[in-house]
Formats: sequence, C-alpha cells, structure tokens
Amino acid sequence: MRVGVLTGGGDCPGLNAVIRGIVRKGTQEYGYDFVGFRDGWRGPLEGRSVRLDIPAVRGILPRGGTILGSSRTNPFKEQDGVRRIKETLAKNEVEALVAIGGEDTLGVAARLFTEHGIPCVGVPKTIDNDLSATDYTFGFDTAVGVATEAIDRLHTTAESHMRVLVVEVMGRHAGWIALHSGLAGGANVILIPEQRFDVDQVCRWIESRFKASYAPIVVVAEGAMPKDGELVLKDGSTDSFGHVRLSGVGEWLAKEIEGRTGKEARTTVLGHTQRGGTPSAFDRWLATRFGLHAIDAVRDADYGTMVALRGTDIVRVPLSEATAKLKTVDPALYAEVGVFFG
Amino acid sequence: MRVGVLTGGGDCPGLNAVIRGIVRKGTQEYGYDFVGFRDGWRGPLEGRSVRLDIPAVRGILPRGGTILGSSRTNPFKEQDGVRRIKETLAKNEVEALVAIGGEDTLGVAARLFTEHGIPCVGVPKTIDNDLSATDYTFGFDTAVGVATEAIDRLHTTAESHMRVLVVEVMGRHAGWIALHSGLAGGANVILIPEQRFDVDQVCRWIESRFKASYAPIVVVAEGAMPKDGELVLKDGSTDSFGHVRLSGVGEWLAKEIEGRTGKEARTTVLGHTQRGGTPSAFDRWLATRFGLHAIDAVRDADYGTMVALRGTDIVRVPLSEATAKLKTVDPALYAEVGVFFG
Amino acid sequence: MRVGVLTGGGDCPGLNAVIRGIVRKGTQEYGYDFVGFRDGWRGPLEGRSVRLDIPAVRGILPRGGTILGSSRTNPFKEQDGVRRIKETLAKNEVEALVAIGGEDTLGVAARLFTEHGIPCVGVPKTIDNDLSATDYTFGFDTAVGVATEAIDRLHTTAESHMRVLVVEVMGRHAGWIALHSGLAGGANVILIPEQRFDVDQVCRWIESRFKASYAPIVVVAEGAMPKDGELVLKDGSTDSFGHVRLSGVGEWLAKEIEGRTGKEARTTVLGHTQRGGTPSAFDRWLATRFGLHAIDAVRDADYGTMVALRGTDIVRVPLSEATAKLKTVDPALYAEVGVFFG
Amino acid sequence: MRVGVLTGGGDCPGLNAVIRGIVRKGTQEYGYDFVGFRDGWRGPLEGRSVRLDIPAVRGILPRGGTILGSSRTNPFKEQDGVRRIKETLAKNEVEALVAIGGEDTLGVAARLFTEHGIPCVGVPKTIDNDLSATDYTFGFDTAVGVATEAIDRLHTTAESHMRVLVVEVMGRHAGWIALHSGLAGGANVILIPEQRFDVDQVCRWIESRFKASYAPIVVVAEGAMPKDGELVLKDGSTDSFGHVRLSGVGEWLAKEIEGRTGKEARTTVLGHTQRGGTPSAFDRWLATRFGLHAIDAVRDADYGTMVALRGTDIVRVPLSEATAKLKTVDPALYAEVGVFFG
Repeated sequence: MRVGVLTGGGDCPGLNAVIRGIVRKGTQEYGYDFVGFRDGWRGPLEGRSVRLDIPAVRGILPRGGTILGSSRTNPFKEQDGVRRIKETLAKNEVEALVAIGGEDTLGVAARLFTEHGIPCVGVPKTIDNDLSATDYTFGFDTAVGVATEAIDRLHTTAESHMRVLVVEVMGRHAGWIALHSGLAGGANVILIPEQRFDVDQVCRWIESRFKASYAPIVVVAEGAMPKDGELVLKDGSTDSFGHVRLSGVGEWLAKEIEGRTGKEARTTVLGHTQRGGTPSAFDRWLATRFGLHAIDAVRDADYGTMVALRGTDIVRVPLSEATAKLKTVDPALYAEVGVFFG
Repeated sequence: MRVGVLTGGGDCPGLNAVIRGIVRKGTQEYGYDFVGFRDGWRGPLEGRSVRLDIPAVRGILPRGGTILGSSRTNPFKEQDGVRRIKETLAKNEVEALVAIGGEDTLGVAARLFTEHGIPCVGVPKTIDNDLSATDYTFGFDTAVGVATEAIDRLHTTAESHMRVLVVEVMGRHAGWIALHSGLAGGANVILIPEQRFDVDQVCRWIESRFKASYAPIVVVAEGAMPKDGELVLKDGSTDSFGHVRLSGVGEWLAKEIEGRTGKEARTTVLGHTQRGGTPSAFDRWLATRFGLHAIDAVRDADYGTMVALRGTDIVRVPLSEATAKLKTVDPALYAEVGVFFG
Repeated sequence: MRVGVLTGGGDCPGLNAVIRGIVRKGTQEYGYDFVGFRDGWRGPLEGRSVRLDIPAVRGILPRGGTILGSSRTNPFKEQDGVRRIKETLAKNEVEALVAIGGEDTLGVAARLFTEHGIPCVGVPKTIDNDLSATDYTFGFDTAVGVATEAIDRLHTTAESHMRVLVVEVMGRHAGWIALHSGLAGGANVILIPEQRFDVDQVCRWIESRFKASYAPIVVVAEGAMPKDGELVLKDGSTDSFGHVRLSGVGEWLAKEIEGRTGKEARTTVLGHTQRGGTPSAFDRWLATRFGLHAIDAVRDADYGTMVALRGTDIVRVPLSEATAKLKTVDPALYAEVGVFFG
Repeated sequence: MRVGVLTGGGDCPGLNAVIRGIVRKGTQEYGYDFVGFRDGWRGPLEGRSVRLDIPAVRGILPRGGTILGSSRTNPFKEQDGVRRIKETLAKNEVEALVAIGGEDTLGVAARLFTEHGIPCVGVPKTIDNDLSATDYTFGFDTAVGVATEAIDRLHTTAESHMRVLVVEVMGRHAGWIALHSGLAGGANVILIPEQRFDVDQVCRWIESRFKASYAPIVVVAEGAMPKDGELVLKDGSTDSFGHVRLSGVGEWLAKEIEGRTGKEARTTVLGHTQRGGTPSAFDRWLATRFGLHAIDAVRDADYGTMVALRGTDIVRVPLSEATAKLKTVDPALYAEVGVFFG
C-alpha cells in the first residue's frame, strides 16, 4: 500500500516530527511505502512529489519547518482541482492520503473525503492552538516558550529604566499564545482578541504597577482590538488569508500609553521567531504521537477522521469537527489569569 | 483568615509559581493573609515561619527551587509531631494549610486531615510525573526539556566519533522522563524501570543503528534494571528515601555494551540539573493555576482535597487518591514508542 | 575608605556582575565599604543612595539589568550639577567613584576628574560594542546570542514558505551586532550603518539565493541607510539621545524587496529583547573581571582611568580615550564577511 | 587548484563552520575546488574522501560535530603512513591540505610539512582552550556556556535543600572550562588541574558558605587532583590518549565532603554534553573566520602556518608553535578568581 503525505498552511515546529512518525511506523510495522507531495495541496494538483522512506526522515525530528514545503493553495478554487488531484493519486498509485494542516487544509481533506470519496486522514496543526477538537496542537508550546523567554528578558530592561514594554505576540482570532506566555512571563497586562480592551483600564494597571516600584510588561495578541475602535490600521492591505492586516496594535498601544501616562513605552514584535526553529520537547512528543496514530487510522481504513489530544490520550474525531468551531479563550479563564494584572 | 503554606520533598521547578499564585489570589480576591512554614513539615513542627505577602512573592515566578525551603521530615515519625503542629497552627492563628509536595508530603496532609481534622489542601508535585491522580505535574516538562537538550547535543558527538552514548536520566520507579526525553531527543534505545531490559537486545539495536551509519544514543532511567539481575550496585548505601541507591546503571550499561559490541561507549549522568533552574512556560502555567485553584478550595472549605490536571481543566480530587497508586508507563505506550528503537 | 558606584545609560547584561565584582573584592581584600548611587548621575545629584555590601550583591550575577537603576541624566546640564555631586560625595564620605556606563556616562566621569578633581574610575559599557579603547564590552555577546538564536529560528520558516525574512537588530552607528549575528546566523545579506546599501544589489543577492532553492535572511542594523537616501523615516520624533528615530528600516526594506522582486517579505524587529535578560557566560566573565580590575585601580589611586579588554588581559586606559573615537566596522572586515552574501 | 580538508581529534562545536568558511571563500573568490578526507588522518591514509562544494556545506554552520568525521589516527604510527598519504594526495591531485585539529593532528601536519614538504595549513581546535598560540579556540565558549547553564540550574536545587553540589567539567590538563564556567556560574569553589587542592580548605569554604545561609557549588575539572594524592582512581584503564582515566574526581570529592562536613553532597558529571550540539554565536564567528583565513594562507602559499586569534585579529603563526606549550591557567588569574571562593 502506498500512502501520500502533505503539509499545508503556515509552518509550525513539529511538522517534520509528524512526517517522521508516519513514515517510520508505516514502513516498519505495516510495510507501506510513502510519497510526499510538495507545498501542500499544490503538490497533488501539479503532480509534484518526492519519495519518503526511512533514510529521508532521519535527523528531521529536531528541525523546524517542513521538509515537504507548504502553501495555502486550495484545490476547490483551482480549475479542475479535484480531478487533477485524483489523477495524481492514481498515477502515483496512492491509496490513502494524510493531510497535516489547519482549518483550511483539513477543510479541503474533509470535502475530498465526503464529497469525492478520497481516503483522507487529518493531523491538526495550528500554532495558535485554536482548534476545538483537540486539547493542544503541536507548535503552540514552542511559540509560548519563545514568547516567554522574550518576556523574561524584557523584565530586566523594563525595571532598569522604569519603562513600559509592550510585546506583540501571534494570535489573530484567539489569545492563547498571549494568555499562556503572558502568565508564564509574569506580564502585568494581557490583551486578547476575544475581549476588546479599554485603554484607560490598561493605563490604570500600568500606573498601579509603577506605584509598586516595578515596571510593567504588556502582552498583546496581534488581533486584540480596543473597545472604542480607535485603532487605525497600519495599511489597508490584506494578508494571504484575505483578512485585513492587523499588525501594528503593539506600536499603536505603546503610543497611546505614552500619551496618557507620560511614561516611556517601547514595543517588541516577536513575529515569525515564534513559529520557527526547533520544536520543544512537548511538541516533539505530541507531533510524533500524532504521526504514529495517523498511520494507525490509515491501517484501520478509518478515513474522514483526524487525530486529536484528549488529556494524555490520542483519539480520533471526525475531520468535520476540526473546522466546526474556533477554540477561543473562555471568559472565565481570562478572569482567572486577570488576578495578576496591575 | 490566615492560611499556612509549605513545600516538602525534593525540589522541583514551579514551586515558587504555586506559592505566588496562592498568595496573589488569596490576598487580592479573598482578603486572606499568609504564613509560610520553612522546610516542609519541619516548619510547623519547630514553629519556623515567615510572612508571605504580595511583595514577598514578586519576581519569584521564573525562579527554580522554593523560597520556603524543603525537607523530607515526617511529623508522624517525630515525637509529639501532630500536637506540635497543632500548637504552631494555633499560635499563628492559621486556619487552613496548603501543602505542596509529593507522595510523602501529601500523605501526611491526608492523615492530618482525616485523623486529626486539620484543614489541609494539597498541591501535587513530582518531577517524575508518577502521581496517578493528575495528567501531569509541574517540573516534569522542565526536566524533560533539560534532558532533551542534552540528548540533542550528544547526537553530534556520537556521530562524529561513531560512539555509543548512554544518558542516565531521573526516574527511580517510573520511566516518564526517559520515555519523553528519549522520544523527543531521537534516542535509539529507551530503558525504563517498568520493564527489565535485555542487554543482548540493547546491543542488537545498537548494532542495527551503526549499520545505518548513525551512532546510537541510549537513554536509561536511573531505576531501570537488567533482566537477569546482573547489575552490581555501586555501593550498598541507602538514599534519603531509605532505598538502596541505584545510581550507576548508566555506567554499568556502557561497560556491558563495550564488552559485547566492541564499540566505544560513554555515559552522561544528568543528575540534579534536571530538577533545578527556571521552570518551562508549561510548568509556570500549570503551577500557577494549581496555586489559584488550591486557594479556591480553601475558600470553599473543601479540605482533604488536592488539585489535579485533567485535560486542560484543573479539578479537585480526594487527597487520598494522590498517594493511592503510582502512575507508571503503560506497556502499550512503551510499545508505541518502541518503533523508533534500533 | 568608602567607594561610590553608579550605572548610567542604556541597560546591558553584565552590569550587576560588575557591581558584584567591585563590592566583593573591595570588601574582602581591601576592607572598603560601598555606597550605590541610584539611577546613574541622578543619584549623586539628588543624594539618592543605597548601601552596597556582600549580602546586597549575592545572587545578582545571573540577573540582567542593574540593581542600581540607570538614567541618562548629565550633571553638566543640570543647575549646580557639579557642586551638588561634590556635596553628596562629601556628605556620604565617599572618597572614590566607579562609574559604569557608555560614552555619555564616562564622558561625565572624565570631566569630573579632569576639571574638578573628583577621583573617578570608569568601566566601559555599550551593548553596541562601539568603544574603541577595548576589544569587547560586556552585553554585546549576549545581544549577539539573542539575535543569532532568532535568526536560527527564522531560517526554518523562511524555507518552508520560500519567503524573504528581514531581521532588524540594534546598532545605530555601528554594525557590530548585525555583522556578528548575521554571520553566526548564516544570513545572506548583512546591512550596517557604516556603508550605505544599494537596494538593487540587495535584491540581486536575494534572487541568487532563491535560485539555489533556499530562502534568504536579511539582517539589517537599525541605523543602516540606503544609498540614495530614499528611506522615509517613520516619524519625525527624536529619541532620548536627541537623534531622529531610525526605527523602521526593516519594514521599509521588506516593502522595497516585495515591490522589486515580487517575493513575499516579512520583518522581525528584535528590539529590547537584545539587551535584557541573563548575561551569557562570556559577558559574566568579562563584566566580573572589569569589576575586579576597577577596584584595583581605586586601590592604586589610578583615577581618570578606565578598564579595558586587550586580548585576554584587562588593562587600564585614560578615561578620555573611551570617548575619543567610535569603533566602527572596518571595510576590510565587512568585505571578509561579504563572501557569504547572496 | 584542489585543496584537501580534514578534521582530527575530539569533536568540537564549530568544526563545520570552519569547513564551510574554507569551501565558500576558496570556491567563490579563488576558484579552488575541494576534497574532504574522512575521519582525520585515516582519510588520506586509506584514500577515503568526499567531494566538498558549496551545496555540500549549506546548512552546516549551526550543526555541531563534523561532517567529515574524526579520528585519532596518527600516520607516523602506521606502516608506510607518509607514503600512503602522499599517494592519496597525488591521486586526488590535491595540492594543499588544511588540517583542523588539536595538538596531535597539528603535530602531524607540522612534521608532514617540515620533514616531507607536504603543503599544510593548520586550524587550531581544542575544547579545552589550552593551545598557547591563540587567545581562544572555538568550541570553548560553547562548552563554558553549557557548563554555566548547568551550574545556574544547580543553584536552585542546592539552596532548596542546603546541599553541596559538585559539578565535574572537562579539562584534563588545563582548568579553563572550570575557571570560566565556575566564575560565570557563581561557584563557591573552583578546582583546576594546575593546582593540587586541599580537601580541608575546600571544606572550610563550604562551611563558610553555609554560614551565610547559602548552599555551595563546587566546580572541579576532571583532571584536578588532591594535594596528598589520596585520590583512588576508579579503574586502571587508559583512555584513547594513552592516559590513565581520571574520571571520578567529582564523585570522590563529594564523598570526602560528606565525610568531613556531615553535609549531603551530590555530583553531576557533565561529560560529552559540553562538546556536542550547536556552537555559540561566538564560536561560529571565530570558527568561520579561522576558515576564511586558512584558505587565504593557502592562496599565499604560506604553508607550515596555523591561524590564530590575537585580540580581535586573525593572524598566522608557525605550526610548530601550536604544539610547543600547553596554555595553562596562570596562578595570578586563579588567585584573582579566588576572591569568590567560600
């Protein structure tokens, strides 16, 4: 049996660990062989593939990114997309497909399975941790670790100069990275997309912190928005998701804080450092197990499913669940963490 | 209301985060004040305490160890232990006690509550992750991270010299650190206390790895034992648990491998570096939330309970559960990981 | 004998190590006692001081920032500045002063000694490594380490998406951080303030890199400027040095690259993470030795001097040398590194 | 012109950076091509080589170890060694040889040049930093960083339990790693091979530290020896240098301390983690520049020389200097650092 593998969407530490897990177990235990398609769904669309065997996946576990490349190509938006994919699979004698990706990539897999009978298994991937079907996704722990280390460093400079330091982290629609790294880094204010923030309240927290003779750190998710909508977008351009670019909330907020409190404020935008580099041990463990269980789903011909983490177990859920609902930060959890604000 | 806090047993990254969470929320939200007892149960036994308020817990989140000190003192083995503890609590007007510790420390808390009516809440702590009542304990992720980074480094030296490298990690009775760090580090053999190992099988894995032109890394938990019991203990001394010291399995194994395969083998014993230093972001998150929920249990007068992680939720379980059963590595999970051996 | 210590200018990992070195050796070997002045020259101006003894400097070696605080206050710009400083020193019975800081702080120390006979010894500090009197200054190695780790992480995301990644690092007038971290991180283009850059040449390097099927990383110092001056400054505001803010070259360049090559480009601005946090081992070594040798200069009454690194030796040079000439990147060294461009 | 490259002796972070520097500059600037010999001098002896070109050295900069492999083979101890090397060079049309290695590897290069006219250029490598001809060698900074991070971690566990922690670091004949990491890590005792230590003095330092309510860290180089020679060697075996194995001083010392002071003492042996893994930014910079200057020496036909660091400059020195004298820790420097003992 020959199995195809592809990675789609934004890159994420742990993708290579998934690929290695799939290939290693599939080859050794089940005697399958493997074809890797290049650059997400563009690979099967354009017939671009590479051979995947055990030597090909040696040494990739600690490496960030994906050896298969990635893209945001959607075959349903391409002429004859589905037919071309079917042809590629047939030509390569691929009998099952493992798709590793986020909402978009897995949404395609779900439709290919449901509407066209293509035997797909999914592995969830989102640096933002915003898929509701799984407790955690790999890459998230690495991103939180990078952001926390940066916040740790900023504390000392904040205190030496009694300045406000604003750290903008990833999270367009969900504040998980901000919440976890802000808590772990001992931030004094954490702002997330789920709840519009009040700049005056932010300034009150900042001033209360200064009164305790400590300098405040504000962690803000890139998608956080002020209450009264006074955020002027940096530009009107749209990103590759088709959304308006929200980058700039960090710098905007620093200026507001300076204007209202009279304190110096500085911004750091962590950007892509959060999604690159070697995965944390937690992410290597989770990603590897996702890979091992995905190939088990193939063996069981349990198509149309996706692997997911529940507690310490890897389970299978319908692919459709993966994209059903965005997992956002619960107000109760945000309130729990709020005890550290100010 | 005044609440006492103590930390017992081996130190563990995240203890300070728990203390900070308890004091911060208890003070701000519930208006409690706090007494910290020094050095585990020795503190209330000998009446040694410090004042714990918000300034006292500032800046301790990223610091390893415990600002309260620790010990393995067991009041049930001390003369008049329980009475002396009751006196200290009365004298300090302490109405509830939060005990942060492992099997031994929590076992004492359970008996003090059940047998003597002392209002105790527990927070589980074990670097080894071997408490069955909770998905994970804080400190474990940090230990796995330290061990994984060490294994990453050893790969390059293994390959440059085509040597076997044996890494001995913590884990006297449970192989969790070995299993997670071994998988995350791409080890070729992982040996755990739950399953006696066969040196000949280990040597076959090593030789198969060399055949693929890679140098093998063997991760061995300090409590792992060979099948035929030919391990000669380094000395007959007992450790502070009263167990015979098992340290030395790493060096013993390296010598066996050299003798049987003719390949050079070197040992690294990671030791206490695994349990010291700044906690990982994951551990800071978990430990802080344990603290926040422990003080909620006090507010609810829900004594005799312990906080625990289930999925992404913090729940309460009876203290007696904490010590009921050692959580060891399931044979199925060990088999799952075994696909990477050799 | 009583000695005063102060830290001025921007914060820098290693300041606490210097303070500890001074106090430890001065107390133990020479029997001195110490007064720490708060917030740079503002401390002696306003008579704000703290006692510095061995317990006060315990545990500060690995901590970033400065326990004494810092400022950019210049007593020569304050009314009666010199007289007020003399009064503070007399009142505190301070017989010698160790000033730890950069060009501005040491320039004040030099004038106080030369023009007013105040016995000063200097310790050079600049994260940018741009003081010509010393081979290296502490803090620089830490900054290069942080930037290199960030570049390492960006490689994987660059390659997975075949994007250009622009990293803006510190360096207003000298390109040392860009040069060292760019080389160490395997960047494909490094742009420094010492040599105006040609955007077309940058794009040619980028395209040559893509032809080799690798994604390019561009490291640009915040003070780097394009050849034909077409850089539009983000705003007209001035920073605390009185210079026009140059921040923005990274984003400006990314936009130019996108426009000219048609490739996606993303920017990361590392900002203050480069100057915060725990110092590297190299910086702890250098800063500690600077402290030990500064107090030796006091013992020798060798005032008006500054400690400096030459090879592996700590030497003394006149304070006036410290500020005489900015140490910029030699064109020959830049050319040497240029072999890796493209 | 074709140039051969080889790496000999123990592995060391930065070897790959040297190789990349040589190949990149030699190919691009001088039009040379390159042959890599496998496993040190064994490569030219046995005619085992690989092609080295720019694609072959891509991505190796951050990787520890050496892509060429290494060995301790000495051609002067092999039958017909020199003749076989000459034949391999002739057969491969190699006109110059760059040897990267320590005392032994460079000693061979020196004799091959002086006695047999083989055109060799050397690049010094020793993790121990004990070559007198150069201020620093690459790999050393990485090793010191790994050891310092371990010591940082051990502080928290030492303090939580009021235990003595003994850290054994590399350094058979020179104490540079112990001295630098001990100072940077804030150790309370540092023991080096250059000065026999007095166990009673060590215990006095330990007790004085406990009196200040801090737990002591003892850093001991593997080659350090007690004054009265009471160290019982663990075994009589010799290592691959032909020296008696000294490993064990750390455990021996911990036992002595426990016996004499009655305090618990624990040992950590860092072992090969110090010489594996990704090089620090400093080591990547130094190693790369060594490579660039080594190929310049080839271009200048300046054979029989070795590159070396003097201050911030790379210079050339006669190969014979490299092995002339071991660079040990100067007693004055040891005394300088001694101010932190106890």
